[in-house]
Amino acid sequence: MAEFDQGKFLERAKHIRLVLSDNDGVLTDNGVYYSERGEAFKRYSIRDGMGVERLAAVGVRTGIMTGEISPSLAKRAEKLKIDLLYLGVKDKLARLQDVLDDTGLEMNELAYIGDDVNDAGIMEAIASRGLTACPGDATAFVRPLSHYICSATGGNGAFREFAEKLISLRSD
Amino acid sequence: MAEFDQGKFLERAKHIRLVLSDNDGVLTDNGVYYSERGEAFKRYSIRDGMGVERLAAVGVRTGIMTGEISPSLAKRAEKLKIDLLYLGVKDKLARLQDVLDDTGLEMNELAYIGDDVNDAGIMEAIASRGLTACPGDATAFVRPLSHYICSATGGNGAFREFAEKLISLRSD
Amino acid sequence: MAEFDQGKFLERAKHIRLVLSDNDGVLTDNGVYYSERGEAFKRYSIRDGMGVERLAAVGVRTGIMTGEISPSLAKRAEKLKIDLLYLGVKDKLARLQDVLDDTGLEMNELAYIGDDVNDAGIMEAIASRGLTACPGDATAFVRPLSHYICSATGGNGAFREFAEKLISLRSD
Amino acid sequence: MAEFDQGKFLERAKHIRLVLSDNDGVLTDNGVYYSERGEAFKRYSIRDGMGVERLAAVGVRTGIMTGEISPSLAKRAEKLKIDLLYLGVKDKLARLQDVLDDTGLEMNELAYIGDDVNDAGIMEAIASRGLTACPGDATAFVRPLSHYICSATGGNGAFREFAEKLISLRSD
Repeated sequence: MAEFDQGKFLERAKHIRLVLSDNDGVLTDNGVYYSERGEAFKRYSIRDGMGVERLAAVGVRTGIMTGEISPSLAKRAEKLKIDLLYLGVKDKLARLQDVLDDTGLEMNELAYIGDDVNDAGIMEAIASRGLTACPGDATAFVRPLSHYICSATGGNGAFREFAEKLISLRSD
Repeated sequence: MAEFDQGKFLERAKHIRLVLSDNDGVLTDNGVYYSERGEAFKRYSIRDGMGVERLAAVGVRTGIMTGEISPSLAKRAEKLKIDLLYLGVKDKLARLQDVLDDTGLEMNELAYIGDDVNDAGIMEAIASRGLTACPGDATAFVRPLSHYICSATGGNGAFREFAEKLISLRSD
Repeated sequence: MAEFDQGKFLERAKHIRLVLSDNDGVLTDNGVYYSERGEAFKRYSIRDGMGVERLAAVGVRTGIMTGEISPSLAKRAEKLKIDLLYLGVKDKLARLQDVLDDTGLEMNELAYIGDDVNDAGIMEAIASRGLTACPGDATAFVRPLSHYICSATGGNGAFREFAEKLISLRSD
Repeated sequence: MAEFDQGKFLERAKHIRLVLSDNDGVLTDNGVYYSERGEAFKRYSIRDGMGVERLAAVGVRTGIMTGEISPSLAKRAEKLKIDLLYLGVKDKLARLQDVLDDTGLEMNELAYIGDDVNDAGIMEAIASRGLTACPGDATAFVRPLSHYICSATGGNGAFREFAEKLISLRSD
């Protein structure tokens, strides 16, 4: 985002109260393991889990919004005490108002991290007043919509990197 | 393919109605997970799945032809609504006519993406009038037979990259 | 550790009797595989297992201390004959005295390898008289606290690399 | 192996009748997946499987010798029609005579690919008259004992690369 300067990023970071994350390609490396019975596993990162804990410790919630209905994700979210969970969302932008209603937050209190074309709409909306990010291996659909492009790739610490970035800016 | 120019690629891309894909090494990274009971899992990519959906949205079907009989693949194909599925194919070139018969398509409406020696025969045939591609980590057997060599590797977005290439050329 | 010279590392290495290791991010690549029933798998390295065996052969024990309570880890430790196992440790530094009591060792006989913020406290303590290390992809929280930064990453031979380093220095 | 020239490699390759392979770190990337019930999976490569088939097609057998007793390996070997299987071998060099007896082959008809310290003894012995290789990420214990160091890493095509190298030299 050419028009977006670092000072503005710092200013906005201080207001963030919720980091909303896509699942596949952000909390995972897009991998899905199939057995003869269908979808069996997804691989999450302990390091990202620590990011959720560390955000919580400074008063920032984490939520997940995904187009898939992945049974493994519900269990992972439960373990990480993430209760803001939007599964099977076909139009993410259309659900943004629900997020605001469910949390009572304002747009400038939201951050979003996503990696693919179905994240583009909601990222463009949130980028106007909140903060956006993508993993280092995100698709071209969301890179131009991201205030922060992680060095780490999806499933391998991208979420944690963004979380630490926000935490460090809040304490500046 | 030295004699193949970019303009011809664009021209051919507009006619593609079916992308036929190998499974192992294209939709997966060649990995197969074994337990004490035998083959247990293969790992697919959500990002490739989005490629199948996006091709369908512009009227291009996806099919899979593989030498293996992988129970996990049948489930993955079902999830992606891929009904053109050729399993346990020992001689892929010999099955090309079946593909044409089953779909009613012409050779110039076919694209094929494969990675190993058992893809070479059918890729050479399809390359004559249709389009061919391979993942970035494909073997030397198919690289010279590929109109497009993906940057992404098998199981990590190669199929999606080829799909996006076709979609972007169709809309030019 | 700027003030730490190579000669001192060699001197200290000769005294090490126990290598204490974090689990996630050291013995694994931080990955955790979830199914619809919750945590299902973690991936360990056969090469690291050989490191445990080789340390044992020169009289150096291996222990594991982790913040998680991972059922797969107990099985992996059993296979590697690691009986010094601290699971679900929320404050690692606070458990250091237990390690000394349980083993009858002195601080200068301990080495520790960890990768994340919850390892920082115990690593700082052990670094004063013993030896510390981290995988090549460790977080910034522990890199400055490490006498040795492995080339190998977590789950891909980092533990083994540190083990071989210790073994080679002992025989000098 | 400084004293070993390329011409000699070609000469020796023509005599090879059996490729003996280590399992972990060659046919796998050293990964072992643990559940709460213990060892659950190992990951093999379809591309390596094709290497076994292609060696068989030119009259070269494949055998596997490993220090582990991995139930998943028995199933993988069965699928690849590998009937020469030595499991739980603590001293590989000591079993070399069994391989010669079981197959009726001479030392100069053997090739061996391994990656770690427990492969060193048998590799040194076979290197004297046969051929040796290691994956690109093999340990320092076997690299100096290898006539051929693969570009590909263990579990990601190293076995296949060595197989193709042998096949291409035989047809020269």
